[in-house]
Amino acid sequence: MSASYPDHLREEVERYLQDMSFSEEPLTAGLEEAMRYSLLAGGKRIRPVLALATARAVGLEQHEVLPLAGAIELIHTYSLIHDDLPAMDDDELRRGQPTCHVKFGEGVAILAGDGLYAEAFRHLLRKQRSAPERVLAAAAELATATGASGMVGGQYADISGRTPPGPAALRRLHELKTGRLIGASVLCVLLLTGTADGPEATPFRRFAAELGVLFQIVDDILDVTGTDDALGKPRGSDERHGKRTYVSEFGIAQARELAAESHATARAALAELAERGAVQDGATAELEDIADFIYTRTS
Amino acid sequence: MSASYPDHLREEVERYLQDMSFSEEPLTAGLEEAMRYSLLAGGKRIRPVLALATARAVGLEQHEVLPLAGAIELIHTYSLIHDDLPAMDDDELRRGQPTCHVKFGEGVAILAGDGLYAEAFRHLLRKQRSAPERVLAAAAELATATGASGMVGGQYADISGRTPPGPAALRRLHELKTGRLIGASVLCVLLLTGTADGPEATPFRRFAAELGVLFQIVDDILDVTGTDDALGKPRGSDERHGKRTYVSEFGIAQARELAAESHATARAALAELAERGAVQDGATAELEDIADFIYTRTS
Repeated sequence: MSASYPDHLREEVERYLQDMSFSEEPLTAGLEEAMRYSLLAGGKRIRPVLALATARAVGLEQHEVLPLAGAIELIHTYSLIHDDLPAMDDDELRRGQPTCHVKFGEGVAILAGDGLYAEAFRHLLRKQRSAPERVLAAAAELATATGASGMVGGQYADISGRTPPGPAALRRLHELKTGRLIGASVLCVLLLTGTADGPEATPFRRFAAELGVLFQIVDDILDVTGTDDALGKPRGSDERHGKRTYVSEFGIAQARELAAESHATARAALAELAERGAVQDGATAELEDIADFIYTRTS
Repeated sequence: MSASYPDHLREEVERYLQDMSFSEEPLTAGLEEAMRYSLLAGGKRIRPVLALATARAVGLEQHEVLPLAGAIELIHTYSLIHDDLPAMDDDELRRGQPTCHVKFGEGVAILAGDGLYAEAFRHLLRKQRSAPERVLAAAAELATATGASGMVGGQYADISGRTPPGPAALRRLHELKTGRLIGASVLCVLLLTGTADGPEATPFRRFAAELGVLFQIVDDILDVTGTDDALGKPRGSDERHGKRTYVSEFGIAQARELAAESHATARAALAELAERGAVQDGATAELEDIADFIYTRTS
């Protein structure tokens, strides 16, 4: 297993995000600063890189989906800002830096998140050069994946303390909270190419869904086994917040087994794409690398 | 001046909002409850009613823009929930009822707002039956009107304390915070009909922009002269929050003059539409009623 992350795609995303600006309005300069502070705080850019790698797998040039990829990272950043708020997880550090509300105050942080979400749709709807009905379908999927039956619903389930016991509800919670946006990073590219219902779709959808699960299991393991330095925040925050995780539910050994199974399922879905002739030979190499990276990452 | 609000349109909006649901997911039932609590708390529904009245002015049936109108009210509700938060205006009452965060807690209120905003785009993009490129244009306008150089930017300017002195900056702040979404309630309908750049567009745009200004001036006056009962919250909240308003800037008498001028400008824009033959005779009657209502309202 290679686990060499496609850094060439990450760098392309990074440059694209650096060039984004949201408001020329002098009255809102401080808001722009808070939005860019959180957006440009680094990270692996897994979701937009996944969108670029999916584009390459289906025969597009990666730059053709950069507006979509950028929008997805804006949404991810917004979700981190709101998750970190005192009324939610109350985290003071993110990637080794003060979180948005610590740096700019709580009111500004709420608005920076709100603004990033609005600007994500504005950017996707104005900049993505695909047929209007396809941009529409991708934007609708993104709204669904991040709405009340998606990411925001999952975050609610996470903080509500009302999630029933047992692994099924835990998996469902994480499908919503983490999985839906990761899945959308793949699915929206298929929607832009009009192949979301074609023969490619089934294994691609399975890959997308499984990658979200894999990400979360590894995340839960790292919160227990990682170092503060590598994580960029204090280890053990899940336990302090009384959160149910794959580790609290199954123990560390079984969580590792689940991660291995999940990784194998994701890789098998990619292999099936090639077997079916749904993609060109070798076209899923970067997607394989991303799956391997998510499985083996240490931060 | 009649000032008879088009209640038949408000009732149609109300029924439509009643029928909306956001998530069938059992894990998120409490989120759905909070979203519907705030959405169905009443109010004049000025923005969606404005969209329906605009549709009738340009010769559509009002029900043809209900998905847009519903999306706009979801966005307005989200903005109220976030504005009321302790980190923002810290308001405990809205329309005589506990605000969302008082009733459900701060974390849930933040997510209820986030969820309503996502569901607004989901709803508009999935339900609005117009040509895809027109739905796309309307959704992009809505994202722009509510983003960093729109509503969220205006709310930032309002809480930042960094807005420069003088009436120009105050007017600009309110154009962003209140005016852009009210304007979009008219403009998005023109975008759905493909007439946003036609001969109707200029007076319509002037009407839409002016109505936002008028709304805010009257709002500022009512915060000083209204009764707690009529307002559904304690009077004088602007002063307690140290907010600059049309009243604090100009005094009550001049603010009333400005409101009268603004109302006259809005009415003149509608008259011009009829003179130009851009709309059928009498087609702007409901828009006139809305302008009159906004000018003369007491709550």
